[in-house]
Amino acid sequence: MLKHIRIILCQPSHPGNIGAAARAMKNMGLQRLTLVEPEVFPHADATTRASGADDVLANAQVVASFEEAIADCQWLFGTSARMREFPWPQLHPAQGAQKILSLATLGQEVAIVFGTERSGLSNEQLQRCDYHLTIPTSPSFSSLNLAAAVQVIAYEIYQAWLGVNAQPKSPPADQFIDKATMDEVTGLLNHFEQTSIKIGFMDPAHPKKLIPRLKRLFSKAQLEKEEVNILRGFLKMVKQN
Amino acid sequence: MLKHIRIILCQPSHPGNIGAAARAMKNMGLQRLTLVEPEVFPHADATTRASGADDVLANAQVVASFEEAIADCQWLFGTSARMREFPWPQLHPAQGAQKILSLATLGQEVAIVFGTERSGLSNEQLQRCDYHLTIPTSPSFSSLNLAAAVQVIAYEIYQAWLGVNAQPKSPPADQFIDKATMDEVTGLLNHFEQTSIKIGFMDPAHPKKLIPRLKRLFSKAQLEKEEVNILRGFLKMVKQN
Repeated sequence: MLKHIRIILCQPSHPGNIGAAARAMKNMGLQRLTLVEPEVFPHADATTRASGADDVLANAQVVASFEEAIADCQWLFGTSARMREFPWPQLHPAQGAQKILSLATLGQEVAIVFGTERSGLSNEQLQRCDYHLTIPTSPSFSSLNLAAAVQVIAYEIYQAWLGVNAQPKSPPADQFIDKATMDEVTGLLNHFEQTSIKIGFMDPAHPKKLIPRLKRLFSKAQLEKEEVNILRGFLKMVKQN
Repeated sequence: MLKHIRIILCQPSHPGNIGAAARAMKNMGLQRLTLVEPEVFPHADATTRASGADDVLANAQVVASFEEAIADCQWLFGTSARMREFPWPQLHPAQGAQKILSLATLGQEVAIVFGTERSGLSNEQLQRCDYHLTIPTSPSFSSLNLAAAVQVIAYEIYQAWLGVNAQPKSPPADQFIDKATMDEVTGLLNHFEQTSIKIGFMDPAHPKKLIPRLKRLFSKAQLEKEEVNILRGFLKMVKQN
């Protein structure tokens, strides 16, 4: 369904940004890039910054006008940092990504449109859009780099796509732990206690909180069998000294 | 609370990436940048790409080693694209951002660590981290640009921050931990290593995986200052025997 989603960059000034945007797209499973009147393209800076996303650049559609770029799109999502004079349906990137994905899933042609580095999309362009996407930023420093904005939007789309495609996942890696049994942990605690007494670290008449503290530590660590073995091996060598 | 969060870039090769990372940070309300052995810095490319985030660059701390960078941090979040040999607590950026923010809210010093452009963080560096952050990407093209990765993580942190500030929540009680600093954990690891050698538990010529395993154990346990003191007290007594 990601194939129904395209990125449109309007009059990008810096070829480096085009390359970086292509890389950001491909990282997130997006392939279709349209460039409206790029100032310089193709260019070595674009290729360098694409860093392997050459296919996205090679297949990029270069067009002479915004109208041409959006002609066969069914839904337009315009990115905008600024509050505009007209109230418009405005979405957070995460909400927007859900919307975009649900449309693409239906086979609808969706475009996300980015404006120039200097001034973003024009009001006229924004008024063509069905929705505005606004990336929340620090009010005192709100202008994102063009490729960085593409990265954030592409990231949210890919996360939404993963969510939709969430197949029964293999359990997270930390569940493949060969966790020690309670018996094994108790054995370790006893071993620790005996050793502490032997080396004079704990006075059995006044044990203080040593063992409770160790219990808590081992519990937090979710000790595995191998870790119990390592620690007991260490304690065994202490006793022989 | 964002002031307790810093970004650490390890041996970045391209000054442009440093500048773009600074811009991405400032866009998302983050100010503290640490550079470990940058190949070239300062540099005109960094300043250009920072595009106004000059204060972040000017205040960047440049250090000679990873150890120095993390010394006074209490929590380390390592970014990693790859599955590693050890299972490790792994978080999606959105989950990670929640965690990072809840720690920073308590005044804990949190660092998010990014590796080199070419190969990311080393296994040794990743083993020092409390959590790994993995940005889900297309399996066929998974390597994000360094500044793009900083952008995604900073974006998620800022969204989490906006969320927290929209609905002031009281942090969960179990996070009031007086966590040990990385320096204190390093001290404990060194002490353990020396003691292991002294008692013949570890052959320095063939250390096997003892120290990495202990690093991982201590990381899982999220060691507190008092626990470090207890374990070092124990090790001190071992040495005297």
